Amino acid sequence: MSKHRLGIITHYKEFLPVSEKTPFLTLHEGNTPLVHAARLSEEWGVELYFKYEGLNPTGSFKDRGMVMAVAKAVEEGSNTIMCASTGNTSAAAAAYAARAGLRCIVLIPDGNIALGKLAQAIAYGAEVISIDGNFDEALRIVQQITAEEPITLVNSVNPYRIEGQKTASFEICDRLEGAPDILAIPVGNAGNITAYWKGFKEYKAAGNITTLPNMYGFQAAGSAPLVLGHPVEQPETIATAIRIGNPASKEGALQALKESDGRIESVTDEEILEAYQLLAKKEGIFCEPASAASFAGIIKLHRMGQLAKGARIVCVLTGHGLKDPSIAIKTIANEPVKVPATREDVMGLIKK
Amino acid sequence: MSKHRLGIITHYKEFLPVSEKTPFLTLHEGNTPLVHAARLSEEWGVELYFKYEGLNPTGSFKDRGMVMAVAKAVEEGSNTIMCASTGNTSAAAAAYAARAGLRCIVLIPDGNIALGKLAQAIAYGAEVISIDGNFDEALRIVQQITAEEPITLVNSVNPYRIEGQKTASFEICDRLEGAPDILAIPVGNAGNITAYWKGFKEYKAAGNITTLPNMYGFQAAGSAPLVLGHPVEQPETIATAIRIGNPASKEGALQALKESDGRIESVTDEEILEAYQLLAKKEGIFCEPASAASFAGIIKLHRMGQLAKGARIVCVLTGHGLKDPSIAIKTIANEPVKVPATREDVMGLIKK
Repeated sequence: MSKHRLGIITHYKEFLPVSEKTPFLTLHEGNTPLVHAARLSEEWGVELYFKYEGLNPTGSFKDRGMVMAVAKAVEEGSNTIMCASTGNTSAAAAAYAARAGLRCIVLIPDGNIALGKLAQAIAYGAEVISIDGNFDEALRIVQQITAEEPITLVNSVNPYRIEGQKTASFEICDRLEGAPDILAIPVGNAGNITAYWKGFKEYKAAGNITTLPNMYGFQAAGSAPLVLGHPVEQPETIATAIRIGNPASKEGALQALKESDGRIESVTDEEILEAYQLLAKKEGIFCEPASAASFAGIIKLHRMGQLAKGARIVCVLTGHGLKDPSIAIKTIANEPVKVPATREDVMGLIKK
Repeated sequence: MSKHRLGIITHYKEFLPVSEKTPFLTLHEGNTPLVHAARLSEEWGVELYFKYEGLNPTGSFKDRGMVMAVAKAVEEGSNTIMCASTGNTSAAAAAYAARAGLRCIVLIPDGNIALGKLAQAIAYGAEVISIDGNFDEALRIVQQITAEEPITLVNSVNPYRIEGQKTASFEICDRLEGAPDILAIPVGNAGNITAYWKGFKEYKAAGNITTLPNMYGFQAAGSAPLVLGHPVEQPETIATAIRIGNPASKEGALQALKESDGRIESVTDEEILEAYQLLAKKEGIFCEPASAASFAGIIKLHRMGQLAKGARIVCVLTGHGLKDPSIAIKTIANEPVKVPATREDVMGLIKK
């Protein structure tokens, strides 16, 4: 078999905590497309790409970190993993647990969670437990149980998650044959910006690239603790995947911003939805609303005249639009128009 | 940039109807994973793989044919494409039209179509027109209009669709360094089995492989015109993507079956759902129900003792499970259990 798409552990093992005992677990995560935005690049005088992480096996970037966390759980003899999650983390945990033959337990807070968001975890056979409490309580219970029982915690505090996630940086550099000038990324819990920066630094240390990007993080305006400089009690945004008031990886994010001469900005829900629609309608890329925060930020900086001519910019799109199709239905105006079943009636609409 | 994931037109141009004027359109379709089923292979004494087409950009194999059809439409100077569809075809058409800057018109029959199924086409900016009639009427109107107007028909009668789709055969052979013994595939409109067989024959003619697989087609029992030998008036199956009573590519399928010494069988909805759940829970692969028909067929043949020891088998999984998450919710029993927010209550469930 060729080396294509054999998964991140096989492909980047020299950069990962892989021992002789680590299983080469994979669902063929990684090797996601770097999509060139030809028309916008020309219009803006830059070189713009989208790293489309929605094409990972479970539909989000979480697969990169989870394959590493689950492989290490197997290596350490664990037969059960556990996390608190309402979304993409639970899908990734459940999928890799299924692949590795482990038991997976997902704790979810009670309340307004669309059952559809959990369809994947359920399909992959995870045991989903709903608690009569909020996310913080769910996470605290998971931490208590995994500290005492032979169960592996796979929430983002598991350090292998960041190790796996950093491989997306490697892929970008491999494709571009160098680092981008700007890496734009949505920031919620801040694990991903931390991981990308770690990846770029390690690739430079290994001599695979000679420059480092400026890291540009974008938070939703209603959920922007790093922009504001303090936690947000009641974060609110339609970009649910980054609706986090007190990021677990805050320190890593601040370090990335400082070391890379980066910036952290907020974008409104309106700006996020504009970017979300533009991506689908003009580039043919359907992503999660939260994913579009990176592109929304770059649009904003372009309008402010703050993108250098010729800059090579990569916007990370963290998840697939199919993760939350209801937003497309709700926010996009062109719903079906109904006409009688004749050529003339249909042509009447087409020609209008 | 490396040659990885540059799309099927760039990667396989010598096998495609590509001229100097054909644009290298791509959303980085193709290069989908061939997932090895290690545990089942060992248990059954075969070499079993899944070709996971759900990781194409819009979540189904339709992207392969559509990129070719839309590239040729651009080459021919068309600025509008049109199709009748209730599902994956419309998503692919809309996405590639957006990417190429073309107008896309989708005709849908009235009635029980989940709006969610159309979320993608709408997000990608297609103009969706609902007619007061069934699918056959929608297709007839599309054929009339595209015959008279400067609008390109991109339904499966567009011959470039099959050209693009055949590239999945090439990828399988490239990964395996040879052809599989058995290619198992869901059969609805029969375009895909036709395309795969065309691909295998062309790869053999070019000297890239030395053998050809037996083509095993599987239809849903309630929608099995090729098994029964006559059209089905009211096809019924939960596998909606293959719920077709009179396949457009019937002749191609019959030719593939005959030339390859293949077989065509039916699988019940129960068998399809069993395979669908097994794939997710034991292999970590979440696919559309219709996709699981190929694996359901192989399970059936295994139970009948009709798989040769050591046979190298590839099951094609045509679309991602996120295309229809409601089926996962409806058919899988392990819905969340709710408990008070304490460590003890959660442990009570885990230990039970």
